[in-house]
Amino acid sequence: MQKVAILGIGQTPISENWDKSLREIAGDSAFAALQDAGLEKVDALFVGNMLSPLINAQNQLGTLLADWIGLWHQEAVKVEAACGSGAAAFRAALMAVASGEVESALALGVEKMSDRTSHDVTAALATAADADYEAEAGVSFVGLNALVMQRYLHEFGWQHADFAPFSINAHANAMHNPYARLHEKITAERFERSAMVATPINLLDASPTGDGAAAAVLVPAHKVASLKNRPRLLVAASSASTDTIAVHSRKDPLFLNAAYASARRCYEMAGLAPQDLDVFELHDAFTIMAALSLEACGFAERGRGVQLGLDHEITPGGRIPICTRGGLKARGHPVGATGMYQIVEVAQQLRGECGATQVEGARTGMAQNIGGSGATVVTHILRAD
Amino acid sequence: MQKVAILGIGQTPISENWDKSLREIAGDSAFAALQDAGLEKVDALFVGNMLSPLINAQNQLGTLLADWIGLWHQEAVKVEAACGSGAAAFRAALMAVASGEVESALALGVEKMSDRTSHDVTAALATAADADYEAEAGVSFVGLNALVMQRYLHEFGWQHADFAPFSINAHANAMHNPYARLHEKITAERFERSAMVATPINLLDASPTGDGAAAAVLVPAHKVASLKNRPRLLVAASSASTDTIAVHSRKDPLFLNAAYASARRCYEMAGLAPQDLDVFELHDAFTIMAALSLEACGFAERGRGVQLGLDHEITPGGRIPICTRGGLKARGHPVGATGMYQIVEVAQQLRGECGATQVEGARTGMAQNIGGSGATVVTHILRAD
Repeated sequence: MQKVAILGIGQTPISENWDKSLREIAGDSAFAALQDAGLEKVDALFVGNMLSPLINAQNQLGTLLADWIGLWHQEAVKVEAACGSGAAAFRAALMAVASGEVESALALGVEKMSDRTSHDVTAALATAADADYEAEAGVSFVGLNALVMQRYLHEFGWQHADFAPFSINAHANAMHNPYARLHEKITAERFERSAMVATPINLLDASPTGDGAAAAVLVPAHKVASLKNRPRLLVAASSASTDTIAVHSRKDPLFLNAAYASARRCYEMAGLAPQDLDVFELHDAFTIMAALSLEACGFAERGRGVQLGLDHEITPGGRIPICTRGGLKARGHPVGATGMYQIVEVAQQLRGECGATQVEGARTGMAQNIGGSGATVVTHILRAD
Repeated sequence: MQKVAILGIGQTPISENWDKSLREIAGDSAFAALQDAGLEKVDALFVGNMLSPLINAQNQLGTLLADWIGLWHQEAVKVEAACGSGAAAFRAALMAVASGEVESALALGVEKMSDRTSHDVTAALATAADADYEAEAGVSFVGLNALVMQRYLHEFGWQHADFAPFSINAHANAMHNPYARLHEKITAERFERSAMVATPINLLDASPTGDGAAAAVLVPAHKVASLKNRPRLLVAASSASTDTIAVHSRKDPLFLNAAYASARRCYEMAGLAPQDLDVFELHDAFTIMAALSLEACGFAERGRGVQLGLDHEITPGGRIPICTRGGLKARGHPVGATGMYQIVEVAQQLRGECGATQVEGARTGMAQNIGGSGATVVTHILRAD
């Protein structure tokens, strides 16, 4: 596979954005990424989005956005893998450039969720689960994750309060990210007092949705120079894996098989071990997912992911910094856009642009985006060259 | 780009299938394609589908189907480009294999449309148009095409009856295709008497929707042998292009710019001219689209596509046989699956499996799948090796 580099990145602040439409938000991130790359256009556009048919009455989003952005007559397509859509679009763009079919591509994740009621959005998010065997039974997406967390507490003997460090770290880091949805420090006390959503998941275990878009420009690596104060950002590894879509079909619902397989293949491709990574943007849609991701990706034994938080190993100065820009928990989770935010944030770390939450000397970082309750996992490792 | 070959194909009969669910229909085509290829599994699954979030309450369809088919832990993703989703999924699979990221891929198009009322389906199909500037104004998908056809009649002086040969040819060919939705010969008289849908488009100008799935297995060409009675099927060219999503934004709504650009690039890649093609499976969602496609792809001058039908040049024995298995008009148009039916049908022609509608000595064929009213166009040329 031909080596591919990230030439530019862009993102929009995540919020309830009443003043801009879906296409305007997407356009903002696209123009920022193109400007950052110093390009006016690219050969192809790959859009990651989950909910536009259901929330925005819009299909054919790739072409709609190519039209809006001014990529007239260029190739454009939408890629969907529930909350893993963003990274899936990035991987599609990567393969297009790596195959030689296109010379440049824009990967863009976008979601505009505020235009409907919470009730509508909850129903729309449930389409990530198995319609016939999960959603039809009435279980919501947070409900599925609550079942998993409850089982984890039972199986490994943790208390709910032990998950607080994940949320505290995410909120603390988001204070320094102007694009984050929430700028609000929290304490362990507040974490425990927070309103229950679906036992044992409370409001501060769960990530907020929102409107947002993030994008990156990909080109063959040989076309990019490594500049003194701006390293060349190589895509060192990329892998996608799946698990059963229904949680109840898994032999062990407490192990993220697809995250394990996808990360392991990335380590092989990049020639790295977990301890070689400087930063890990993981998919903390709920605090339980942060723990399970750390375990599946080799940073902790089964049932021990929570300990990393308690030991302060997940902060920007810790052994494996996660959610350095706020994570899904506090940067926000505009579902189909999240995977692209993660890629953009790892790129920012490798470019040394993260200020107070900069991981010193970061050279390699991993981004892992998850669709459904661990059903689709897309992992990338970036390296500063 | 590494050369890629089609190792196996599969399809299901198109119908209102009340006895099978979305996943069962998709599985039927997948198992048929894998059996035809002599494989038990593949590295990755690329699913083309437009309407499952809206009609089947299901997102993350790639992973759902990987799970159902038994491709556990393999990569899976959905690709969406409205009615162009099928060929877009095929192109995504092609780039994955061509990039070397995967050694084998299954491209699968599926749509299950019968589970909702016509009213719901009409609204769902309107999401292919621009939600803010077309659908919001109340124009349906057939309405948009009717505006284009009306303008064509006015501009070039044809009568509605002149479009009859497109429909007659499609229906005649479908008589010999066991997978076709309609097995019913029609006459020019019946074409003209048919009920009006949206002036000037009547029922026999329009393609029927339906439930169906079609699939193909792709592998690197060097892994396939050319057998005596079964040629190696090479993907000789692939290209995707876009136009403005809204028809009213185009300088000339009677010329399919994206079809022109996409076909032209395919001709260059394959080293062919239009007259070198033995068969052309085009996107006759409405008879007007058949005429416009023939013009954009170089088979007729602007405004003269209709003449090819009147001159009997589009039949299996004609100069450029189209809709040899019934086309969208009579084989049927399960929207997100259609592009894969076209690929499968061209492959059948090159394998000489088309019986009464076999194009004698067919060695090269083109399939062109269109999303929206010419907004996304994905073209492939296959060649028997």
